[in-house]
Amino acid sequence: MSKFSREIEVSGHLIDSLILTKIFDVIMDLNGEFQVLEINIGKKKKDASYAKLLVQAKNQKLLDQILEYVYRFGATAKIQKEVKLKKAPKNMLMSENFYSTTNNHTQIFYKKRWINVENMMMDKCIVVSSKGAKCVPIRDVKKGDKIVVGETGVKIIPPERPREGMNVFEFMGSSSSSERPTQHIAKRVAEDIYKTKKAGGKIIIVGGPAIVHTGAADSVAKLIRFGFIDAVLAGNALAVHDIEYATLGTSLGMNVRDGTLAIRGHRNHMDAINAVFKAGSISNMVKSKKLKKGIMYECVKRKIPFVLAGSIRDDGPLPDVITDIEVAQKKYKEVLKDADMVIMISTMLHSIATGNMLPADVKVIVVDINQPTVTKLMDRGTWQALGIVTDVGAFLPLVTREIEKLK
Amino acid sequence: MSKFSREIEVSGHLIDSLILTKIFDVIMDLNGEFQVLEINIGKKKKDASYAKLLVQAKNQKLLDQILEYVYRFGATAKIQKEVKLKKAPKNMLMSENFYSTTNNHTQIFYKKRWINVENMMMDKCIVVSSKGAKCVPIRDVKKGDKIVVGETGVKIIPPERPREGMNVFEFMGSSSSSERPTQHIAKRVAEDIYKTKKAGGKIIIVGGPAIVHTGAADSVAKLIRFGFIDAVLAGNALAVHDIEYATLGTSLGMNVRDGTLAIRGHRNHMDAINAVFKAGSISNMVKSKKLKKGIMYECVKRKIPFVLAGSIRDDGPLPDVITDIEVAQKKYKEVLKDADMVIMISTMLHSIATGNMLPADVKVIVVDINQPTVTKLMDRGTWQALGIVTDVGAFLPLVTREIEKLK
Amino acid sequence: MSKFSREIEVSGHLIDSLILTKIFDVIMDLNGEFQVLEINIGKKKKDASYAKLLVQAKNQKLLDQILEYVYRFGATAKIQKEVKLKKAPKNMLMSENFYSTTNNHTQIFYKKRWINVENMMMDKCIVVSSKGAKCVPIRDVKKGDKIVVGETGVKIIPPERPREGMNVFEFMGSSSSSERPTQHIAKRVAEDIYKTKKAGGKIIIVGGPAIVHTGAADSVAKLIRFGFIDAVLAGNALAVHDIEYATLGTSLGMNVRDGTLAIRGHRNHMDAINAVFKAGSISNMVKSKKLKKGIMYECVKRKIPFVLAGSIRDDGPLPDVITDIEVAQKKYKEVLKDADMVIMISTMLHSIATGNMLPADVKVIVVDINQPTVTKLMDRGTWQALGIVTDVGAFLPLVTREIEKLK
Amino acid sequence: MSKFSREIEVSGHLIDSLILTKIFDVIMDLNGEFQVLEINIGKKKKDASYAKLLVQAKNQKLLDQILEYVYRFGATAKIQKEVKLKKAPKNMLMSENFYSTTNNHTQIFYKKRWINVENMMMDKCIVVSSKGAKCVPIRDVKKGDKIVVGETGVKIIPPERPREGMNVFEFMGSSSSSERPTQHIAKRVAEDIYKTKKAGGKIIIVGGPAIVHTGAADSVAKLIRFGFIDAVLAGNALAVHDIEYATLGTSLGMNVRDGTLAIRGHRNHMDAINAVFKAGSISNMVKSKKLKKGIMYECVKRKIPFVLAGSIRDDGPLPDVITDIEVAQKKYKEVLKDADMVIMISTMLHSIATGNMLPADVKVIVVDINQPTVTKLMDRGTWQALGIVTDVGAFLPLVTREIEKLK
Repeated sequence: MSKFSREIEVSGHLIDSLILTKIFDVIMDLNGEFQVLEINIGKKKKDASYAKLLVQAKNQKLLDQILEYVYRFGATAKIQKEVKLKKAPKNMLMSENFYSTTNNHTQIFYKKRWINVENMMMDKCIVVSSKGAKCVPIRDVKKGDKIVVGETGVKIIPPERPREGMNVFEFMGSSSSSERPTQHIAKRVAEDIYKTKKAGGKIIIVGGPAIVHTGAADSVAKLIRFGFIDAVLAGNALAVHDIEYATLGTSLGMNVRDGTLAIRGHRNHMDAINAVFKAGSISNMVKSKKLKKGIMYECVKRKIPFVLAGSIRDDGPLPDVITDIEVAQKKYKEVLKDADMVIMISTMLHSIATGNMLPADVKVIVVDINQPTVTKLMDRGTWQALGIVTDVGAFLPLVTREIEKLK
Repeated sequence: MSKFSREIEVSGHLIDSLILTKIFDVIMDLNGEFQVLEINIGKKKKDASYAKLLVQAKNQKLLDQILEYVYRFGATAKIQKEVKLKKAPKNMLMSENFYSTTNNHTQIFYKKRWINVENMMMDKCIVVSSKGAKCVPIRDVKKGDKIVVGETGVKIIPPERPREGMNVFEFMGSSSSSERPTQHIAKRVAEDIYKTKKAGGKIIIVGGPAIVHTGAADSVAKLIRFGFIDAVLAGNALAVHDIEYATLGTSLGMNVRDGTLAIRGHRNHMDAINAVFKAGSISNMVKSKKLKKGIMYECVKRKIPFVLAGSIRDDGPLPDVITDIEVAQKKYKEVLKDADMVIMISTMLHSIATGNMLPADVKVIVVDINQPTVTKLMDRGTWQALGIVTDVGAFLPLVTREIEKLK
Repeated sequence: MSKFSREIEVSGHLIDSLILTKIFDVIMDLNGEFQVLEINIGKKKKDASYAKLLVQAKNQKLLDQILEYVYRFGATAKIQKEVKLKKAPKNMLMSENFYSTTNNHTQIFYKKRWINVENMMMDKCIVVSSKGAKCVPIRDVKKGDKIVVGETGVKIIPPERPREGMNVFEFMGSSSSSERPTQHIAKRVAEDIYKTKKAGGKIIIVGGPAIVHTGAADSVAKLIRFGFIDAVLAGNALAVHDIEYATLGTSLGMNVRDGTLAIRGHRNHMDAINAVFKAGSISNMVKSKKLKKGIMYECVKRKIPFVLAGSIRDDGPLPDVITDIEVAQKKYKEVLKDADMVIMISTMLHSIATGNMLPADVKVIVVDINQPTVTKLMDRGTWQALGIVTDVGAFLPLVTREIEKLK
Repeated sequence: MSKFSREIEVSGHLIDSLILTKIFDVIMDLNGEFQVLEINIGKKKKDASYAKLLVQAKNQKLLDQILEYVYRFGATAKIQKEVKLKKAPKNMLMSENFYSTTNNHTQIFYKKRWINVENMMMDKCIVVSSKGAKCVPIRDVKKGDKIVVGETGVKIIPPERPREGMNVFEFMGSSSSSERPTQHIAKRVAEDIYKTKKAGGKIIIVGGPAIVHTGAADSVAKLIRFGFIDAVLAGNALAVHDIEYATLGTSLGMNVRDGTLAIRGHRNHMDAINAVFKAGSISNMVKSKKLKKGIMYECVKRKIPFVLAGSIRDDGPLPDVITDIEVAQKKYKEVLKDADMVIMISTMLHSIATGNMLPADVKVIVVDINQPTVTKLMDRGTWQALGIVTDVGAFLPLVTREIEKLK
């Protein structure tokens, strides 16, 4: 078997972050073999480890497949090779055999040195120009763009598993059971929001209309008013029901304060939509004092950006909704740039959308009463997400109350 | 078709409570026909209505089937017939063609008058003696017991749908969506508990261990201490984890106060079990001051009865657990007698068990984060249950806080 | 109380279809009173019933509220009044107090006769012109359009509950438990599809990507090839994964045939997207023989319309995707016109979208493994939907097999 | 820090099976430090690895805590120490500080050599006698039994992650999403059952009544008839509804064959119960030809042991049901002895019960439509379980069909 082999090197927290385990796994899964030529485990916990392996396979094709994988885990060939580039044949078309990105930080070996790929997102291609390398979605590809192909010269920096400090991510582990001490989790989430903000971090809320239906709109509005939130990403429904609640006291026609059904309540959300059309926009409605509280109100008042992305199920939609989803995706990405923490609440659609746009080292908290929503988000690649299976109508008020104590 | 026909009468809230609708439905579903001979709708809302129908079918068998159903809905034949009785052929054996009970109030036409069946439960038989008629489970049937057979002479009093007053049952409707204003629902449940108790009602909690895991044990303990709860029905796990939490601060090894995993925490619930065995019983443990707080502690202190029913998955189980489920069922029934309100929290097993033992006019509230649990309970016949899909760890503290305000 | 009263009339299947029950309920819920002045129950099951009631309330405002509701249930004032119209003050703005539509068939009393409102959908307004009355979404409202306001002169024709014939809707009832005989339900759904098509009906599939992930794409493709499906409504993901599966054998990188993970499989769906961009469109890809099987292939081959609506979470999206959701909504509506049966599979987003566009008498079947998805659709107003809680990957092949037997 | 330190050794598949990762993790989580004194990674995939570490902590208590954990992961102190034993103070009472077992294979260092603990189960204690060491539940502890205390001299053999051969466990990973190719999974499960049986393995089914409700009873009966199943563990409900279906064609009153509701169907399961009481037992019912098909019938016919454990929610229960759960647990354990594969279908109660009784190297497959059921089982310690989120009514017939092809 010796003919088809390659020496690879890898360094970092090989044991803690499971890098070596994953490399061994994939070699064996693909029927390859390996020899550990050299290994040096960090003697103390902060020390990085180093390993040199000889990977072997029955034929060149299998060897290449194995190497593609191990490169993904951060290993590199002993002798570095330049990244391969190929020009895009036309606008909105990636080159054959394009490298499809992950959400991990990525480097390419270009002109004999490793350079970072900017604007990292999942499932995109990498375009290299004189300005460097960046992650580009297919519809933004221009004819002639130099696109990375194959896996040669591409290196991933796998995220370290978080270890130090005490935040909510550490004690939860990866599991998302509903059998956790809810009040305590709320406290931890509150502390995490508080500390992230104190340290100058950027926190974004991605939310669905169940925030309003379950009576948690006041809590989210408060978080914004207190200055903890830097942007809100949502769809038409969150804004409509927030405004319905702020102006008429109902959510989908149910009085949030006393739980009764309002007379003619079925038309209230349409009335809210009509009111916004009358004002011309949500911010006009705030200016003209027709909208005086709620999530959207606080965004306008505090000049926090919000992006409302259209969807096929929208009523209206509101004039503020971006009905073209290509444009909406661009706005989402702008807002998400440099985010430190993203809190996703009761919306599978916008959560998965946002997850795809985030590098893997951004903290993501997903709050939903439905466990499969959380599972699906992780299955779709946002594996770093911390899932909290709870009732947002009871949970968010707890978080806000804890934050008020910390202030 | 005229040969096979029967005149029936029905009275009550025929329209409000859908009685007439159900009668029409079943006649048509079984390919029968009907003529409305007389109808008298209550002119005002409190007035009862009356209808006389002629039911017709192609043959006697079909007619009998239709009549069986319409009698179940509270209709009666114009000419009353005596209930039919047949002696049980041996112990623990019901007579052929036994009448299988529902959880509705039921009367039989015995010795020319309608008498109530006592101790109404679902899926049992009716035994008639000189003392009257009562509902009896198969294992309690004695040889020679006179058991009601067929449907002749049996009448059901369908429960009225609740209309007057303002309680949580009214505004929720039958649906059990998670998209409801949680804080408000908590307030309504609190009011309902408060009013029921004020009026001298009997309130029973049926609970699973998730109460402890989600950090809501203190809330339930408080409800008991405040005197709102008259009994607790549960299994081994609730008691074990409550005692684990009370003595060691953990639930399944996780520190409830700060959410971290305790050192050697995996053995804590076994340690709690061992401690009870050492004391001999839970009440001994309270007496010897080894158990000083929690749900079980409050039950002992306030002399509230608790019944712990064994199950195949029990660790231990505790000495207080009734390991024979026949005996446990009897104890459950004793405790449930004359209950006005039953609150079922995070336990499908004990909820369905309890549901089967309750007449349909007892208020039932089911709180669970998992919607199918609620659906299943209703499918099993406890259709009167009000389902609240929420996180008990966040919901119960809200309820307790509201009750403290009312006190 | 006599001063504020009104006589109303109502006819139809008052008992079967719960119309009278609902009217009594709402009068009492709003603290009104009623007298039954006249009632005539259909003597046989096909006969319609008629009732005349005197509705009373404490003041005019309450009376008006009650009347608004009872008109919604199909009652009409004894003396008909013309519908009230008010001109839209500007483009995309409905008149104050606009009547917000339901998904029931609706008539307005205009120029002394009842006329049908065309193009009935939920949560829209009604515009009256010389051509008649039609249902119009807010963004299509033009300045000066005459819009129905208030509830006067508006009548709803509540759908009859289905009774005759044997279809899947009858035996399921309204409940959507997972505890039903799956193979039999599949057979009934197959029979219903078969009969609907035989009778010249129009059947539309609304689907999500789980169809492909769970291995049911071949079954859906077969239904189209056999001629049972008249249109497919979906998003980008269904098309992408269907083409990924058709060209590369994987779905989200997993080999559907043998369940293993494909080498570099994570890039396969991006590869499929790139292939469509290369061809220019899905139909070009079929023409150039690059796409030779699957759901999209069969649509193109059989000239079945498909509409792919964009969403914020789309990768790509494909050139065929309509990225502006206003345009996509219009296309959806065009396709849905005159549909007889809509089968919604594993997609909450597109199901709710479609549900909003359908009159209440179109048969809707929702298939999803997640019970809350089904509950939510019904909560949003598509109450006529039949929910089947099952695994589409196992269920759809059963349906197809049954249809093959019927052919 | 050097004063409180200990040298430990560990060998095995340190990297593959994450042993080293877990050891590093726990040392850091508990604020200890470590030095890697020696490490020897297996050069080829079959080779075991070896490491010697120096573990350090601030004080003796912390060091002891760390050591307790690392011993659990299979590490051992460089110098072996005898296991500590302490006599049980009375019947049904474990000694203070008893060692609480996991479901991993465990050895103790007793009389200077490592001996296996027999009859390994979760959450029990270890009793040592002249016959060796065995796992004992608290209620079986006798006064004077020598019970292992503390963690000294106890070693766990962590299970290897499965690598070789092609079975369903390998391709699924640990996740239990519903988005998997169902038909293929059914094929793999069928192959796994077939191969396990061919190799002389013991396969046990643990099942709930949803098997019958969803129409899959015939499939399970077939698996037994074909000789693939060695025992059935269940509760009263599976047997009752299986016999209801076999004798009356219904399950909870619904005709399984055509999905309609049977006349008086609500009493059918009570009728089935009465019929068994009449016969005296299930096997008598088979002998007297009253029971001629179904799961219970096949068990009796093929002399396959079945154990029906009572629960508080039982109707009846059947004479065959073991109403004392202590006795039922003993019977379950007897049947589970030496099982190679356990298939758990739609029953959380019996699945968790069985999971607790199984060593961690027994293959466990859990099939349920409700994802939280699967999550909960794993949370309770049966982490080796493979979760399949599907509709058993569609899935089991697929499995049976595949097995028929293999025969």
